[in-house]
Amino acid sequence: MSTTTPHPFDAALQLAATAPGQYRGHTTPDYWNMVGPYGGITAATLLQAVLQHPQLLGAPLSLTVNYAAAVSEGAFTVRAEPVRTNRSTQHWTVAVLQADASGQEQVTTTATVVTAARRETWSAADTPMPAAPRPEDCAQIPPAFAVPWLRRYEMRPVAGTLPAQWDGSEADSLSRLWVRDAPGRALDFCALAALCDVFFPRVWLRRARQVPAGTVSLTVYFHADAALLARTGSGHLLAQARAQEFRNGFFDQSAQLWNADGQLLATSHQIVYYKE
Amino acid sequence: MSTTTPHPFDAALQLAATAPGQYRGHTTPDYWNMVGPYGGITAATLLQAVLQHPQLLGAPLSLTVNYAAAVSEGAFTVRAEPVRTNRSTQHWTVAVLQADASGQEQVTTTATVVTAARRETWSAADTPMPAAPRPEDCAQIPPAFAVPWLRRYEMRPVAGTLPAQWDGSEADSLSRLWVRDAPGRALDFCALAALCDVFFPRVWLRRARQVPAGTVSLTVYFHADAALLARTGSGHLLAQARAQEFRNGFFDQSAQLWNADGQLLATSHQIVYYKE
Repeated sequence: MSTTTPHPFDAALQLAATAPGQYRGHTTPDYWNMVGPYGGITAATLLQAVLQHPQLLGAPLSLTVNYAAAVSEGAFTVRAEPVRTNRSTQHWTVAVLQADASGQEQVTTTATVVTAARRETWSAADTPMPAAPRPEDCAQIPPAFAVPWLRRYEMRPVAGTLPAQWDGSEADSLSRLWVRDAPGRALDFCALAALCDVFFPRVWLRRARQVPAGTVSLTVYFHADAALLARTGSGHLLAQARAQEFRNGFFDQSAQLWNADGQLLATSHQIVYYKE
Repeated sequence: MSTTTPHPFDAALQLAATAPGQYRGHTTPDYWNMVGPYGGITAATLLQAVLQHPQLLGAPLSLTVNYAAAVSEGAFTVRAEPVRTNRSTQHWTVAVLQADASGQEQVTTTATVVTAARRETWSAADTPMPAAPRPEDCAQIPPAFAVPWLRRYEMRPVAGTLPAQWDGSEADSLSRLWVRDAPGRALDFCALAALCDVFFPRVWLRRARQVPAGTVSLTVYFHADAALLARTGSGHLLAQARAQEFRNGFFDQSAQLWNADGQLLATSHQIVYYKE
């Protein structure tokens, strides 16, 4: 007799169908952030609802998640609806709902997903992976803060680490790190979506000030197909993020994630709230 | 007695409320593309529905538009719903619907919008405007193709113009141009959203091959507030776009739009279908 414990990521993404296109999930302590789940696990959960929908066509192409309110500890509902299915693309609207104090379901998160049946075409990379030492030559850092989700990623910074001193000195907003799930796990679309939110807020780096910040909207474009994810396996990804503009309470972030062979798996963007 | 003809952009964005959060619009020949309206005018129309909604809080922060099907010539319905309103942000789901041959309304376009009440904070630019000759020193080009919407923009290329020869030679995917509405019109959020889709497909530039291509999903992050848009007025914007990856039928594009004073007004991203 053998017992197996699922990987914390798979445990977090457990969704039980309760009606067509409606799923019941539960937050897990493993991916808890400060006042709610890690944004990446919420993105992955929304995508998972699409992937296990019986009408799914193709594989993820794009995902936009809007964090309207913190998800509270406990059960939640995910609704996923294929609103338009074409020959090779399918358009989804997705939402997370949770009962408020009065028992009424309220939307905490909205999302749109596009899935596509892809075929081989002429292809070309226009953003080469930047030079970086090999992952094994970059020291793994302990979690920088006492939030559980940070223990779910192995992080090996290459450039643009958290400021050593929170002294308000200004620097550029670029970070690079080698990163993968901890414990190791073969990469799939949901894990890749979650990894796109792995960067600490650019405003902390830019200002060397740890101001409150939180993602408002996140978009992921998937360039990898299932075969490329399978080839990547549980290897490290080189993840890069930078901001373009900080203005009156919100900054944007652009990110790229390559596998160790230099293949671009996903590009991602987010707009983030910050205080002061 | 005086008669005034509205600007074609304002005519295109005419929406009549037919029920709470429901609007009736009509395609216009002025912004017609090959098989449907210019994607930018559809994005602007979706945003317009939010902006004229009586429950609106704040100004546009982010917009994601998913082009599920071509909008046909004629009338269409826009539905805009504020699904969650917080103290300083408001989350919207928006859709365009149009009757199919059997008279049944089908979704052609989905969108999410976040609006926000912004206040002044520490701010900083992290993507300086690239050096470029002044707009008046760059020649205005005639529309490169016989599609009506191209006549609605004054375009003065700076770098990365359409290939002179469609000879399959490969080049990088970066374009820069000075651009503004034609005829001139004071910039507002809807016009800025529309301008984010003004670039010809990166794959044409990268490959010097004019393959079929179309935007699947477009995201705009607004960094400008109304006061900055007012200061920009009807001046030229420097618009820059580049692709990051072309893979198996889809490429992504990242774009920035500055005013002539070098202030970043919006950043934008899209994922685009291409053939072969």
